Amino acid sequence: MSLVVPDGTGIDLQAGVPPSAAAAPARWSHRHLLDLDVVSWPEIELVMQTTDAMREVLARPIAKVPALRGIGVTILFYEASTRTRVSFEVAAKNLSADVVNIAASSSSVTKGESLVDTIRTVEALGADMIVMRHATSGAPYLAAEHFGGSILNGGDGWHAHPSQALLDLYTIRGHLPGGPNLHGRKVVILGDILHSRVARSNIWSLTAAGADLWLCGPSTLLRGFDRWAAAMAAVPGHGRFTLTSDVTAAVRDADVIMALRIQRERMSGGLLPSLREYAARFGLTLDRLALAKPEALVMHPGPMNEGVEIAPEVAVHPRSVITDQVTNGVAVRMALLYLLAGAAGRAREATGG
Amino acid sequence: MSLVVPDGTGIDLQAGVPPSAAAAPARWSHRHLLDLDVVSWPEIELVMQTTDAMREVLARPIAKVPALRGIGVTILFYEASTRTRVSFEVAAKNLSADVVNIAASSSSVTKGESLVDTIRTVEALGADMIVMRHATSGAPYLAAEHFGGSILNGGDGWHAHPSQALLDLYTIRGHLPGGPNLHGRKVVILGDILHSRVARSNIWSLTAAGADLWLCGPSTLLRGFDRWAAAMAAVPGHGRFTLTSDVTAAVRDADVIMALRIQRERMSGGLLPSLREYAARFGLTLDRLALAKPEALVMHPGPMNEGVEIAPEVAVHPRSVITDQVTNGVAVRMALLYLLAGAAGRAREATGG
Amino acid sequence: MSLVVPDGTGIDLQAGVPPSAAAAPARWSHRHLLDLDVVSWPEIELVMQTTDAMREVLARPIAKVPALRGIGVTILFYEASTRTRVSFEVAAKNLSADVVNIAASSSSVTKGESLVDTIRTVEALGADMIVMRHATSGAPYLAAEHFGGSILNGGDGWHAHPSQALLDLYTIRGHLPGGPNLHGRKVVILGDILHSRVARSNIWSLTAAGADLWLCGPSTLLRGFDRWAAAMAAVPGHGRFTLTSDVTAAVRDADVIMALRIQRERMSGGLLPSLREYAARFGLTLDRLALAKPEALVMHPGPMNEGVEIAPEVAVHPRSVITDQVTNGVAVRMALLYLLAGAAGRAREATGG
Repeated sequence: MSLVVPDGTGIDLQAGVPPSAAAAPARWSHRHLLDLDVVSWPEIELVMQTTDAMREVLARPIAKVPALRGIGVTILFYEASTRTRVSFEVAAKNLSADVVNIAASSSSVTKGESLVDTIRTVEALGADMIVMRHATSGAPYLAAEHFGGSILNGGDGWHAHPSQALLDLYTIRGHLPGGPNLHGRKVVILGDILHSRVARSNIWSLTAAGADLWLCGPSTLLRGFDRWAAAMAAVPGHGRFTLTSDVTAAVRDADVIMALRIQRERMSGGLLPSLREYAARFGLTLDRLALAKPEALVMHPGPMNEGVEIAPEVAVHPRSVITDQVTNGVAVRMALLYLLAGAAGRAREATGG
Repeated sequence: MSLVVPDGTGIDLQAGVPPSAAAAPARWSHRHLLDLDVVSWPEIELVMQTTDAMREVLARPIAKVPALRGIGVTILFYEASTRTRVSFEVAAKNLSADVVNIAASSSSVTKGESLVDTIRTVEALGADMIVMRHATSGAPYLAAEHFGGSILNGGDGWHAHPSQALLDLYTIRGHLPGGPNLHGRKVVILGDILHSRVARSNIWSLTAAGADLWLCGPSTLLRGFDRWAAAMAAVPGHGRFTLTSDVTAAVRDADVIMALRIQRERMSGGLLPSLREYAARFGLTLDRLALAKPEALVMHPGPMNEGVEIAPEVAVHPRSVITDQVTNGVAVRMALLYLLAGAAGRAREATGG
Repeated sequence: MSLVVPDGTGIDLQAGVPPSAAAAPARWSHRHLLDLDVVSWPEIELVMQTTDAMREVLARPIAKVPALRGIGVTILFYEASTRTRVSFEVAAKNLSADVVNIAASSSSVTKGESLVDTIRTVEALGADMIVMRHATSGAPYLAAEHFGGSILNGGDGWHAHPSQALLDLYTIRGHLPGGPNLHGRKVVILGDILHSRVARSNIWSLTAAGADLWLCGPSTLLRGFDRWAAAMAAVPGHGRFTLTSDVTAAVRDADVIMALRIQRERMSGGLLPSLREYAARFGLTLDRLALAKPEALVMHPGPMNEGVEIAPEVAVHPRSVITDQVTNGVAVRMALLYLLAGAAGRAREATGG
């Protein structure tokens, strides 16, 4: 039924995408992107190279290619979000996909519809890919079991936020003085590690990149990570990470400091001191930044509580790459949608579907 | 001002639509679709044939035709909805219409704006067609009196949900063993008939199709339908329906069983027993399904309360056509938008508008 | 990187727009549209002429031109709105811009994200223009300080609603018996002046047009405007306005009467009598309309409380141009987006950006 059949869909995925994306050495083999624990380093490199190609697209006066024309992308968010939702929406539209937004607050989920029923319905409505955010850790895995297309995890509970970790990695590689190789470079994640899906996904990608990773926060918010650190230290070829509540030790000579958002609602649980005390003890201030390497990068996944986990003057500091993270996010998500569509097309071809 | 003027709009409605849609015998004469009581059987057949053509479009790698290019479709929903809202949105976009979504919760209706004022405003903003859902029965009729374009009722109170009934009919015809003719076939609608706009619209189309229609539910939820049944039995040429609270008698030898959603909020009104008791007395279980014909179809308009009105294993049973209903919904709504746009164009042509 | 560089963006702004828009005498010099106080009369005339061209576009069977292809327009509304939000969305899509909707209720602002952080993020996500509504007066000014593109104020607190004032002016000019010149014509704004951004922006444009402007409402809702009136009366070449609570004096021999929406929530503040008393003392009734000139225009920015600030029969009176205001709103906003995009493009060209 189609003339161009490189992948069995009749969609010409390469259309308009710079050849650097297609000429990449590795091959993307995953139908879903649920977390980075199962993504190999060559595959991460492939995402990085494909993102380079997508940045070329974004630099054009009309930043649009027809690669995903005819592909239905549903953005199904059970939690409020501006940046991640819009980032995926812009990415999908730049690739000419047909985008549908479903926000939990205005959907049937308020009627008690089950997640699985919703996923089956969204598929029957024509979705080839679902970008999903859910307050429950693991929800995208359940969705993937019942969906014939590709699930992209846009954040699930405390568990994972893989596209965020990939845009963080891409941003670090693009700005790190001395080149993109992260081997042995000191990267600090500072804040509420316990409740952070951003931290968890970054642990996979940054240890895979060989970084000297430090996780720093109140000891109540580091619980359980010691066992993870010990388990990884025992695996040959895997990176390591250090846990500490000593912010001075953490930021000293750091190459990268990533401050995490403090969720104000954690206060009531007694896990955190007051916001003011948190800011004094763990906030990323100019004084603390001065302990890092002179050209250290400042990062934050947003949205920021300026004056709490990050001082306003640090947020807009010349070393801050926080807005670069946002811009790179669109390019990384274009790359992910593109690679997953290719893998899904190959999967359909293999099964004759 | 236009070169192609088959219907006075300058829009080439046939563009990209398979000829089977245009070559249909009957002609669609309604500007609005408010309910099925005024739609003749040949017109329903025309919807079915046009839906066949739209399914051909949906099977293409890029499921898009330019038939409604330049037509503004506003989806104005005063009640939360995933499937119906997205179904109409995808349908309208597949026909290349310009789609605007207005959800009541984020609109001026929270400021006390009247429905008529909103309809006039939506028209002045450029809408040619409004797909409307409203909690008040009859609201689309009021809208139709004040709108110069076409109103499609996407569900009003307990009253009507005509596109749902048409997709139900299309799904039955496509899956019924022995062919699409419903004459004398036993169709059961099971559940809260009283509050169901789905049931009411299905009564019109299924009796028009000549089905042996059974409505089954707690007697408190069948009130008033006896008079409707008696009135229809007195009209020559009109189908009949049977009311019962005996679920065994209803499902025995059925060709089709359609379970309706139980609205949990009805419990508080005292009209329904507890959910557990309801499930025991009226839920569509495997045991009850076993009483129907061996190839009976299982249907549900969604969203489902699995374990209440339908057992989880029945929802995904090989005889279940519930996801087919969703997919057919997109095609049926494409057909309806297409036919209404054609009728509206002819009306404008006739009045020189 | 582009072939067509009239403005440094590579976007051909004139594409598809009737030449009358490009051939206008004045030049639009503002990157942002925050309020009308800094917009000169020749610039307002330019908006009027460009709107004429956009109305030509709207009259086409397919009301779409590629002028803003490749331009990202984000509609960022912190307050609920139907007409203004949809009006800008339709306007931007008619110009082929890439539109993203962000409603505050479903965005990170519920997480306490600061406005400035949001604006920086929206820019990094690819927005060239932001249409913004905010409950706080002055918020768009803060946004403009941190945004590299263009801010269009879609209403901020009690302060300003410039696109509304421009569509009001365009509507008056198009319907006023005796031609578009407003010099010396009596225009009455009737209602809750104190809390009205519509009134404030209209004061700038209507006095600039030379109208004999009257502001009429309960004296509690005129507070502070006497000093503004005195200040403007002292400025040579500036129009004047009269304050009164005498509705009979205000509407007598009026050429235009614009009724303002009464916000029901003002009642609790003690600034207003009951709705019934307000309707009796200040509502625009047929009796009061009869005091105006025989062909006086009736206007309302919507949404209306029919029976409160305007009688239902006046809202749909032959002299009412209320739905024309809505339709003109789309054309005026197309003109504004078009002019601002041109100015932003020239600014980028000048700075080599």
